[in-house]
Amino acid sequence: MEKITARTNDKIKYAVRLGESASLRKEAGEFFLEGARLCSDAVQTGIVIKQAFFTAKALWKYSDYVDDIIAKSGICYEISAEVSQKLSGTENPQGVFCICEAKKQPDADEIRPDGKYIALENLQDPSNLGAVCRSAEALGLDGLIVSGGCDIYNPKALRAAMGSSLRMNVVSTENLGDLIDSANSKGMLTLASVPRNTATDIRTVSMNGGVICCVGNEGSGLTAETIEKCKLQVVIPMSGRAESFNASAAAAILAWELMR
Amino acid sequence: MEKITARTNDKIKYAVRLGESASLRKEAGEFFLEGARLCSDAVQTGIVIKQAFFTAKALWKYSDYVDDIIAKSGICYEISAEVSQKLSGTENPQGVFCICEAKKQPDADEIRPDGKYIALENLQDPSNLGAVCRSAEALGLDGLIVSGGCDIYNPKALRAAMGSSLRMNVVSTENLGDLIDSANSKGMLTLASVPRNTATDIRTVSMNGGVICCVGNEGSGLTAETIEKCKLQVVIPMSGRAESFNASAAAAILAWELMR
Repeated sequence: MEKITARTNDKIKYAVRLGESASLRKEAGEFFLEGARLCSDAVQTGIVIKQAFFTAKALWKYSDYVDDIIAKSGICYEISAEVSQKLSGTENPQGVFCICEAKKQPDADEIRPDGKYIALENLQDPSNLGAVCRSAEALGLDGLIVSGGCDIYNPKALRAAMGSSLRMNVVSTENLGDLIDSANSKGMLTLASVPRNTATDIRTVSMNGGVICCVGNEGSGLTAETIEKCKLQVVIPMSGRAESFNASAAAAILAWELMR
Repeated sequence: MEKITARTNDKIKYAVRLGESASLRKEAGEFFLEGARLCSDAVQTGIVIKQAFFTAKALWKYSDYVDDIIAKSGICYEISAEVSQKLSGTENPQGVFCICEAKKQPDADEIRPDGKYIALENLQDPSNLGAVCRSAEALGLDGLIVSGGCDIYNPKALRAAMGSSLRMNVVSTENLGDLIDSANSKGMLTLASVPRNTATDIRTVSMNGGVICCVGNEGSGLTAETIEKCKLQVVIPMSGRAESFNASAAAAILAWELMR
């Protein structure tokens, strides 16, 4: 295993940039993954590992995970603790990192007319995005739809998703409006989640067929266009002086109702 | 209004420490709050503002909020942009800060036998704690119970709670076990949320009377003692390879079921 001890090594610099830049991830069709469990999960999910980086300590400390990763990886490098710290987004890195090939995700026209989906519009906080992935998988949704630059390969999103985003179907679209039009024409029920108690109580909606439920940005909610295109505006009824939920809490409750 | 331009001013150093140190907050019975909307919300909730700090820009930019705060505050200071940056936990501070008196919270024996509560044990991430407060208020729970150093006055928790933690009843306890014993003896239903599909499906539990539902630490879940003391182990049924929910997503779904 070739050793890398310089933080300025080109491979290391590339890996760091891959973690930082959504546009580079898109252009290269690759993403950067950190953590013994997450990298091993990726391998088990069939994600292609192009390069893997381990500290000497990680090679024995996480050997169960690491052996699995090495067996399925392209080129493996041993890195120094300093390089590990440079690569890591955490204070105490485990010393396990991979550069992975982005998964081929389904297109909008592969959305199942009888499926249950949450669509996230312009979600800003990658941790919220990851948490929604995790809830969506646990609750058995057929997939997630993301628009407006939500990037499941953002390192914080990957961490919060605990591997779920690598296993889920995630449809990424630049035009949520067209996707909703198409879903409507297929007979799916399209829901716009709004924080207004005058909208339809989510508990009263029949979820028998295919459903897409849209959840908006943390600060500004759904766009007017999306609300207009959806067949129904729904609300999680609120009391007290609260005006809305955290986006991932709202998505969790809505996904739960979709599958209830 | 006295001006403070030095980051090393004692009042500023104290305010920073108050934001950083849970033990200082407890000892002083005070907490530090940032943001025009949050500080104004605190005033409207009847929180006592001991000191307030504003930049010159904030005084006009957020005048609606600020006028309200000044009217109800103890001493007010005008601070420079540099001091504002020093005080702030964000990159682009609004320039509005307060030192507030911690609210008198109810004791464990004030828990209503017919009330609905979520209890958080050893929750680690203050953003999760704040998000649960927000969900609990929006869903109309009677209160929140926190143990194991969960501090609602942590700045990240305050930010995520969007003011809800200043309005909610929050019972803080060092001994969740005793509180559960007491709740059991009052005839309340005590639930331990566990990520095991063999536990009782939360949808099948009757929530007619008083209920306390316990949610555990992000990594390790509830302690064995808490699980043992609760009358029933419950689960949000999971599918796929997901092994658990994000703590605040789980709490949102459980609170929703308590109130459904």
